Amino acid sequence: MKDLLRPDLNFRLDGRLWMEADERFMGIGRLELLTQIAELGSISKAAQAMGMSYKRAWDLVGSMNAQARSPLVLTQTGGKRGGGTEVTAEGQQMIREFRELQERFQTFLRAEEVRLGLGA
Amino acid sequence: MKDLLRPDLNFRLDGRLWMEADERFMGIGRLELLTQIAELGSISKAAQAMGMSYKRAWDLVGSMNAQARSPLVLTQTGGKRGGGTEVTAEGQQMIREFRELQERFQTFLRAEEVRLGLGA
Repeated sequence: MKDLLRPDLNFRLDGRLWMEADERFMGIGRLELLTQIAELGSISKAAQAMGMSYKRAWDLVGSMNAQARSPLVLTQTGGKRGGGTEVTAEGQQMIREFRELQERFQTFLRAEEVRLGLGA
Repeated sequence: MKDLLRPDLNFRLDGRLWMEADERFMGIGRLELLTQIAELGSISKAAQAMGMSYKRAWDLVGSMNAQARSPLVLTQTGGKRGGGTEVTAEGQQMIREFRELQERFQTFLRAEEVRLGLGA
């Protein structure tokens, strides 16, 4: 590959991964949303931190929860504590496992860069 | 992963790969364009076959040629044979090597599906 490329340019390999059934289930954006919700305890704060509309964030959470065996995010509207939102143990496991998958993907990309003779 | 997912849905892993320097150089769409040009001997016919505008196809060819050490696509405008377009030996090599990379990526995806317990 390297012999086909301009030697004065610095080529990289990049990519994206996602998991889907009938619709998208998990990808790098949804992983980031879950992570932000876990950190901030709020869908609206997570949306704001990502520059995403509240409606969009809520739709994504609904899509993930609908496809998971048990919810990844729990929202308590009303009640004594009102408005509490948490990423469940299953949601935490999802964050962990999908992050590990992303890391293996990065390892694949770096190995392919070496094989193709890209990079410094 | 499997234990987190609804058992009545059929989850798959999918993804995309691309090569870039300061701008995109090669991806699945550009690979398809090169392949169509090689088959049809014409940028306009290739564009039409892909439902892409002629301008877009021409821009993509220009971007690939500008980043390659020597052109991947040669167009002869005017001259005795007029308007002939061909994918060069370097372009053919690019098609072959990027297709092989895509196949290794598919192998990675299928192996990860097994690891995650997805699929039938």
